[in-house]
Amino acid sequence: MGRQLSRPVIADLMSRALEHPELLSIAAGFTDNAVLPRELVARAVSRLSERGMEYLQYGLNQGRLGLRRATAGFLRSYPDEAACVVDEDALLVTNGSQQCLYLAMQVLCDPGDLVLVERPSYFVFLEMLKGLGIEAEGLPSDAAGRLDFEGVRSLLRDLRARGAAQRLKAVYLVSYFSNPSSRCLPETDKIRLGELLAEEGFLIPLIEDGAYRDLYFEKPYPARTILSLDSLADFPRLFLGTYTKPLATGLKVGYGACTDAAWRGKMLSAKGHQDFGTSHFVQAVVEVILEEGWYEPFLKGEREHYAAKAEQMNAGLEAGGLRDLGWNWEKPQGGLLLWMEGPPGLDTRAGSPFCEACIARGVLYVPGDLCFTGGSPRHFVRLSYGALPDSKLSEATRRFVAVARDFS
Amino acid sequence: MGRQLSRPVIADLMSRALEHPELLSIAAGFTDNAVLPRELVARAVSRLSERGMEYLQYGLNQGRLGLRRATAGFLRSYPDEAACVVDEDALLVTNGSQQCLYLAMQVLCDPGDLVLVERPSYFVFLEMLKGLGIEAEGLPSDAAGRLDFEGVRSLLRDLRARGAAQRLKAVYLVSYFSNPSSRCLPETDKIRLGELLAEEGFLIPLIEDGAYRDLYFEKPYPARTILSLDSLADFPRLFLGTYTKPLATGLKVGYGACTDAAWRGKMLSAKGHQDFGTSHFVQAVVEVILEEGWYEPFLKGEREHYAAKAEQMNAGLEAGGLRDLGWNWEKPQGGLLLWMEGPPGLDTRAGSPFCEACIARGVLYVPGDLCFTGGSPRHFVRLSYGALPDSKLSEATRRFVAVARDFS
Repeated sequence: MGRQLSRPVIADLMSRALEHPELLSIAAGFTDNAVLPRELVARAVSRLSERGMEYLQYGLNQGRLGLRRATAGFLRSYPDEAACVVDEDALLVTNGSQQCLYLAMQVLCDPGDLVLVERPSYFVFLEMLKGLGIEAEGLPSDAAGRLDFEGVRSLLRDLRARGAAQRLKAVYLVSYFSNPSSRCLPETDKIRLGELLAEEGFLIPLIEDGAYRDLYFEKPYPARTILSLDSLADFPRLFLGTYTKPLATGLKVGYGACTDAAWRGKMLSAKGHQDFGTSHFVQAVVEVILEEGWYEPFLKGEREHYAAKAEQMNAGLEAGGLRDLGWNWEKPQGGLLLWMEGPPGLDTRAGSPFCEACIARGVLYVPGDLCFTGGSPRHFVRLSYGALPDSKLSEATRRFVAVARDFS
Repeated sequence: MGRQLSRPVIADLMSRALEHPELLSIAAGFTDNAVLPRELVARAVSRLSERGMEYLQYGLNQGRLGLRRATAGFLRSYPDEAACVVDEDALLVTNGSQQCLYLAMQVLCDPGDLVLVERPSYFVFLEMLKGLGIEAEGLPSDAAGRLDFEGVRSLLRDLRARGAAQRLKAVYLVSYFSNPSSRCLPETDKIRLGELLAEEGFLIPLIEDGAYRDLYFEKPYPARTILSLDSLADFPRLFLGTYTKPLATGLKVGYGACTDAAWRGKMLSAKGHQDFGTSHFVQAVVEVILEEGWYEPFLKGEREHYAAKAEQMNAGLEAGGLRDLGWNWEKPQGGLLLWMEGPPGLDTRAGSPFCEACIARGVLYVPGDLCFTGGSPRHFVRLSYGALPDSKLSEATRRFVAVARDFS
């Protein structure tokens, strides 16, 4: 299968960061070691070992019942999410939400099929689609990144006109503190998009990726998930969440909440072939942390931590005067990422003079073109304030600013 | 993808066992809670938390360097395995060896391709192939289960004669205390099979599944892995090993050692799309257990434990007089499984009167037909002495014997 040949960019970024500690990486979406839950995990393991042995035994392919129940409860704990249709039966626990996304694509699509994504979208997802031979097409949006609904309608009609309607299998939305844009999708836009898809005869699966939803800084973003929106009831829906980013990237426990039994059943079959169940031990660790009520206080501290880091990076960029040089960005309200539009004409792609200058100065970012289907525009960058400790984050920001000034 | 629709039997068996504790399951290959390494895991977590935080952070897609090094050392610690070509670069850490097997098939085969397997073979693998649209064909063997090399030659020539040679992509061998047969493949047979494949022009990937290799009772089975056999140097080779069965099924850490850089690279790309790395935390736990020298003493105790359980089940079957009723089996020398041939004409398939009688009496086994391509013969059963504690194991064996006697 030649289409699996290319090495994923995410693997390269992570390797470069891990193997060259002298490079300051604001590229890969690592979290901050300083807030990793060492104490909570140790306490959870100790609690588990008092209880018996089952956590070191095989578990269900779908995931631990207790973890699925606690997760359903967690989802319902968001404001106005009482109508959330999710219970433990609708949930499957996966190796990060990434595996669930992979399973969803595997069972929905054949090579040559098509998925609609935002512009920009999660680049690891775009690479996954390439690996599976699936095409991605960007949802039209305006200069501020808001969905352009008339453009979406034209796109859908055009698909139908050229006989490609049957190939369109899903819409993928990264709707809370998005990777890469850190934007959120207003609830009214989710509803409007659903109406439009229905009007045009596309009652296709909707996938909402909420990987960063729990990492809000001040307050939850006031939009219900697609699971709670009545007007979307006719669509098969999958909401992806995770404990990887907000709890610990080293645990690698995520989940999918799927409203459609047939779709969910197919994903579970494929998971049965891939690993017949995520590590029962890490699932049990997360379950204890949730059940003991340790998760919310942990999240509270973490949110303050990342809010301060976002503020710090933002302040460094402002102080560097980049706006005056044609750069544009919004200060993040959650998540780990800061998305910047460079001056028109700047090329920030891997291998570009700008990118090489950054590496030469010892700072790594994610080239924005990776986040667009078709690889353009080419003047965006994705920065992460997640991993580096304060002093290094300031230094990395300074290095980036210095290169940006050199290129202005 | 309709071919992913069917629910894997392994998931059903595990669900039935977990959801109906009144049924005594000698079906699914669970291990014995009594020997799970609760203390070792707790000690490893405590050791890790003294060291820093990196074990709770993302790691490399390929797996932790320390774990890969320790694993290469472990592989080389077997008698006569000094020539083993494996080092940390050749190893990839996966979610159980199951994921590595899945990755191997994904990147080697397209739907309609063909893989050669033993008769019987690992039924979860056969189901995986079905899920991926890949065909399996059995390697001819004699009544005692030994490879029939002239039969294999005829099969290869027949494939070529009917223009199917290009579809043959791999040979899969479960060569140490096999699931399901508990047999081992002599080194001479591996060499002879290689010669024959080369003579017939099939220098195709060889996959050796050693999931149960470390669970020998008295001494290691005296056959080197395919990694150490010079005469196989021209074949791309993948050896699969795991810490899931011998250490803890709840950890779900396995590995593949692959001699072919291109093949390995493709597997790593696919893994990058599926999860970009197995849970770093569980990898670190296993790494500490290996590095601290805790693994070998643990294995020693476990081997004695399972040897006694195999002895117990075997004694129960002998005492039940099943040999006189036309049943035949070999006493296992390692692993967790006992493979029995029933009297000719007996139907042990799921849903058969024999199978239903066993369930009615409260005992679950794996129908042997699942382990054969094409689903026949139909008079074998796979029993596991792994999970049940002594008293329940005796009772399950008694129940099985009672049904077998009823059907004689």
